[in-house]
This record gives sequence, C-alpha cells and structure tokens, in this order.
Amino acid sequence: MTTRFSFTLAATDGLARTGRIDMMRGSIQTPAFMPVGTAATVKAMKPESVRATGADIILGNTYHLMLRPGAERVARLGGLHTFMNWDRPILTDSGGYQVMSLSDLRKLTEEGVEFRSHIDGSKHMLTPERSMEIQRLLGSDIVMAFDECPRADQPRDEIAKSMELSMRWAKRSRDGFDAGGEHVVRSALFGIQQGALDEELRKRSADALTDIGFDGYAVGGLAVGEGQEAMFATLDFAPEQLPTDRPRYLMGVGKPDDLVGAVERGIDMFDCVLPTRSGRNGQAFTWNGPINLKNARFAEETGPLDDRCTCPTCATYSCAYLHHLQKSGEILGAMLVTEHNLSFYQQLMQAMRTAITAGAFANFAAQFRHDYLKGG
Amino acid sequence: MTTRFSFTLAATDGLARTGRIDMMRGSIQTPAFMPVGTAATVKAMKPESVRATGADIILGNTYHLMLRPGAERVARLGGLHTFMNWDRPILTDSGGYQVMSLSDLRKLTEEGVEFRSHIDGSKHMLTPERSMEIQRLLGSDIVMAFDECPRADQPRDEIAKSMELSMRWAKRSRDGFDAGGEHVVRSALFGIQQGALDEELRKRSADALTDIGFDGYAVGGLAVGEGQEAMFATLDFAPEQLPTDRPRYLMGVGKPDDLVGAVERGIDMFDCVLPTRSGRNGQAFTWNGPINLKNARFAEETGPLDDRCTCPTCATYSCAYLHHLQKSGEILGAMLVTEHNLSFYQQLMQAMRTAITAGAFANFAAQFRHDYLKGG
Repeated sequence: MTTRFSFTLAATDGLARTGRIDMMRGSIQTPAFMPVGTAATVKAMKPESVRATGADIILGNTYHLMLRPGAERVARLGGLHTFMNWDRPILTDSGGYQVMSLSDLRKLTEEGVEFRSHIDGSKHMLTPERSMEIQRLLGSDIVMAFDECPRADQPRDEIAKSMELSMRWAKRSRDGFDAGGEHVVRSALFGIQQGALDEELRKRSADALTDIGFDGYAVGGLAVGEGQEAMFATLDFAPEQLPTDRPRYLMGVGKPDDLVGAVERGIDMFDCVLPTRSGRNGQAFTWNGPINLKNARFAEETGPLDDRCTCPTCATYSCAYLHHLQKSGEILGAMLVTEHNLSFYQQLMQAMRTAITAGAFANFAAQFRHDYLKGG
Repeated sequence: MTTRFSFTLAATDGLARTGRIDMMRGSIQTPAFMPVGTAATVKAMKPESVRATGADIILGNTYHLMLRPGAERVARLGGLHTFMNWDRPILTDSGGYQVMSLSDLRKLTEEGVEFRSHIDGSKHMLTPERSMEIQRLLGSDIVMAFDECPRADQPRDEIAKSMELSMRWAKRSRDGFDAGGEHVVRSALFGIQQGALDEELRKRSADALTDIGFDGYAVGGLAVGEGQEAMFATLDFAPEQLPTDRPRYLMGVGKPDDLVGAVERGIDMFDCVLPTRSGRNGQAFTWNGPINLKNARFAEETGPLDDRCTCPTCATYSCAYLHHLQKSGEILGAMLVTEHNLSFYQQLMQAMRTAITAGAFANFAAQFRHDYLKGG
C-alpha cells in the first residue's frame, strides 16, 4: 500500500459512521478499537494473538517508552514495529496525558512540561517538539499532537487557558512533525480537541485545530472521571464540531457501552486499557455484561465465558478453569481472559460496523443495551 | 493406541538409553523431560505451545491440586486433561514431597501425613490410599507411589527408617492403585527408590520395590540440596539397581548439565520447575550456558537468545526486547522466555536421543559440557 493516509467513509447511519483508514502499514476498519501496548507489549499477549483478535492497529505510550527503553534506543534497534514484532500501524500518544497523571514533580510552562520519571526519578522535559521527535524515533504511524489534559472539574477560565495552551502546542506539534523529514511522508498527525465539557470552548478548540489542519482529530479530555452521562452530553456536540471527512478518535474510552454510545455520536476510533487490565484482574466482558471470574459461582461452571464469543478462550476453556487460574494467580489466567476481552471488543466493533452498513445501528444499540446492561 | 503401558528400548550407548513409552494418551520419547504443570497449568504457557516445544508428557502436582481446586472437583469437571486442555499423558506426583516442603504443621505417622494447607490453613490427611484416590480422581496416566522424602543430611538410621516406611507405603500404594477399578486398565504406577546417598540402602529400596512390581521406577530423594557431585555419585549406582527393562525417572532434576550427566548414568525421565521458573525470572538457557536477561549487556543486543535454537522466541525476538520486557516486569517476558527454556530443554533431550541412537553420546556430552559450562 502506498497511501500515506486516507479515510474513506463507506456508510453512515444517523451520526454513526463506518469506513476505512488506509496507511502504508495496513488498513484500519472503523469504528476501530486499538488495544493498548503501553511498554512495547499489549500486556499478556503475543502480537500474533493481538492481530488474530481482529485488531488493525495498536497504541504505544510515548511517556513509558521514552523512559524505558528510551526513544533513541528504540530507534537504534530498528523502531517500535521491529522491536515488538508488530508490522501493522501503531498510534502513539504524545505523552501529555501520562506525564501529568504518572510522573513526579511536574512543572508546566509555555515551553512544555518538566518532570521526574516515576521509574527512577530521572529528570526529563517534554515539549511539543520533543514529543514529535520521540514519536518519530519510535516510528509511529499515527502521531498525536502534544497537549495538556486538565481535570474536567476546574473553573471554566482554567479550562479555557489550558485549551488555548494546547492549541498553541498543536501548532508547534504540526510544525515539529512537518520538520521530521522522511517520517512525514509515511505517517499521519492527529490534533486533539480540548475544552472539557464546555460546548463553546470545544468549538473554539475544533476551529483552531481545523485551521492548523490535521489528518484526524481526537476528542481529548474525556474519560477523566466525569461519568458516562457527562461524557455523552459532551459527545452530543463535540464530534460534530470536527471535520466530517476525517477520523474522530475518542481517547482513553472505554467500557463496551461507552463505545456503543460514542459510535452513535459519530466517533470512529477508540483506545482503552480496560480489556487488558480487566483480563489480568479476572473481569471478563460478555454480551450479557461484565463478569468477575473470581466469584465462587464459576467454580464448577463448565460452559465458556460467552456462548456467542468466537475467541480461542471460549472455544477451549470452561469458566471453572478460568476461575481456578484467577484464584491461583496464574499467568495463564491473565493470558486467556485478556485474549477473550480483546477479542470481545473487536467482535463488538465488527458488529457495530455491520449494523451501520446495514442501516440498523439503532436496533443494534438497543439490543446491545438490553443484553449488556440488564445481563441478558 | 490401546497399550496401557509399554517401554521399548531402541538403543543404548554406554549406560545411556533411548526408547519409547507407549500409553493410551500417546507415546513418550525417552530420555524425556516433563514440564511441570503444578496448578493445572504449565506457568505462562498455553498447552498447545507446551506441546509445540516437543513435550510428550507433563507433570501435575497432587498436593497443589488436592488443595485447589480439589481432586473431587477436578473429577466432576471431567478430569485434569479436560480441565486444562492437555490430551496427552500426565504424570502426577504423590504429594509426599510437597506436603513435607510446603505445608504447615505436619504430623507424620505410619498411617500417613496430617497437615494444614499453605493456602487457607485447612486440615488434610494424605495416606498412600488417599494419594492413589486423588491421582485417580485427577485422571493421571502415570501415578507415583506415596513416599516420604527425608533430608539427605540426616543420620543413616533415620534415612533407613524413612526408606523402610516409604517401602511399606509403596506396597500400600500398589494395593490402593490396584483397587482403583477402571483407572487401573489405562494408567501406570511407578515406585520410588529412597535411601539418600547410601548405596546399600538404595539397594534394599530397589529390591523392595522390584518385589512389589511397578511399571517404572523413580530415583527419589535427590536434588534436595546435596549438590551435583553427590547426586552423580549416587547415580553411579542407583539406576543400575533398578530393572533394566523399565523406565527410570529422576525426580525434580534439573539443570541442563544435570540432565546430561544423569542420562549418561542410565536415567530415562526427568521433571523440573527450573525452565519455567527461570523463564519468569529472566534466566534463559542456551547451548553456551545460562544467561541473565536483566544484565545491562543485553540492552541493545539485536541477536536472539541462542543462534542454534529453533523456538519461536529465538525466531522472532531480540535479546534487547526480552531484556526490556524483563526489566519492565511484563508478562510477555515470562511467556517468551519460558517458551524458549522449555523448547531448549526439549531440543537438548532430542539431541541426547539422537546421540545415543548414533552411538555418539560420549562425544555429545563432552561437546555439550565444553560449550555449556565454559560459555562456548
């Protein structure tokens, strides 16, 4: 494939959209869910198993990778794709969110953020320019602009000031990215809308980003504790403020019912640690809602996690066995439930794509909520 | 296959032997290494991956399984093979060794051992009869007699008394096993020689076991801290005291150089947690000796763990990536290095079988030691 980046809408149904992103390393069916590979690994999964779940793209975390093993080291080792054995697209975040949530002793200035590593206390500086450089060193396919993600409960003028800083950083990200030489001709850059729950701030942010011009647009600053109702209320206006002909990516979301509600509101891409983190903790997602495998009721349950699921775990293992592995703290328990959860998420995305294509998304969403939220 | 149990020697070279055990669930090439699947899982491995390393048989631990999930529960769930998705032979130990090494508040009598679970403090009794019943409930293919494993540094009369108790328990194990109905016609029973490092006690134990009659014979009571020199000195006489036409199983051994030295002395079967446990800790076995992946010298090493290894990890991943995963505490690190280690052990067993068949075992062993012990 020789397309740097193109987005083709195949069908819409209400505000819901389905389509395809084409990039040099492969195509991405949308709506898409991106498994999170924080430290150059989707936790407890081999990359070929991640691909077998149906994932077209994974996410890597700039903050983690810059600290360990280090962006320059990854570059010397041939880039992130070679390093971790994933040859399809990788989206990298900018580090902006995690530097604020994970690091110690942050100092925020117009220039960027100075911080200390949560691993070894070493001092680092992240700026829009350095974030672009790191993502280029990693060999990212979809690069995210460097932004600041404020808490949603701050005063409006704080939210506005933060959003405006992020928009100046978006422009510096665009310039830094464009100065990246060879990398520019094979990767894409996404801007990130901020403005918390405020429609007017979101609009100003969307306009600023559109003026700069990006390959895709993320809705940032949600899924930070505001709750599903407030998130959906914001998604009632935020995606429509962004260009129709570009993919819209809701960062860090979410639960299966979050995904359905967000697709309903025009979102095309998602990432979230929930299916992987839950898999390690014994929580499995099913069409009838989430279940906790450590619950004693599964001790002699010979059926699979989900009768309708097509994943290898459900084809092979009983709930009783998975219960035993979780109770015993066995690594295989994390492996099998993570594989199920990631597969379930991809099956959900495929079901949404099919429903949108068929013009039946409203029915699909109603049936999904009936089964998922009421436990079948 | 309809053979309950048969052992066919194909070739000998000095005291080293190669052959095949045939059982209903499959054949076992000897010398054989059995990966340990303590809690109904070979840690950090899917069973199909265990099989792909070349393993013909795995080991399950009676002590762990009786406590969690419980033998009766495993039986209700269809037996250990169904429960954990391994359809080839499983050897189960008797619980005798681990009840002494892991449990709390043991009380040893002629009848058996009373103990408290290390998991929840619950009270249990293991006797030869109960051990046979548990192994039957699990659906074991090769059942081990219930024995007591004393420390090698005890006074000779204590070792003798313990060995004699184990021989009385061996007879009760034989009787308990034979009373097992249907299970008897599709599984095998091995006796366990005791007597620590003492040639005369080992001989008395071997004679007592041979009088009772078993399908195979284990050399027990070694690899308990006596060191390789003392172990080899004991293996200079112990295996030859056991019947030539039955498999000889050295329990709980060992390092790659232990395996080569033991095969040289007439051993046919092994089990050990070393390749799996080491895999989780970042120690990898190679033809040039063990390496610690956490060592900084691997941080930018683009080569595989071992140039000669044929495992998926070596085919795909650099030492630098495995170093990163181990430093980051990632589950995938445990998965990939465990897979390599188990595969390396099976490649070593295959190399020994090939060398014995070719009548070239002495040369093989010399070359192995040159490469392995001197680091190539």
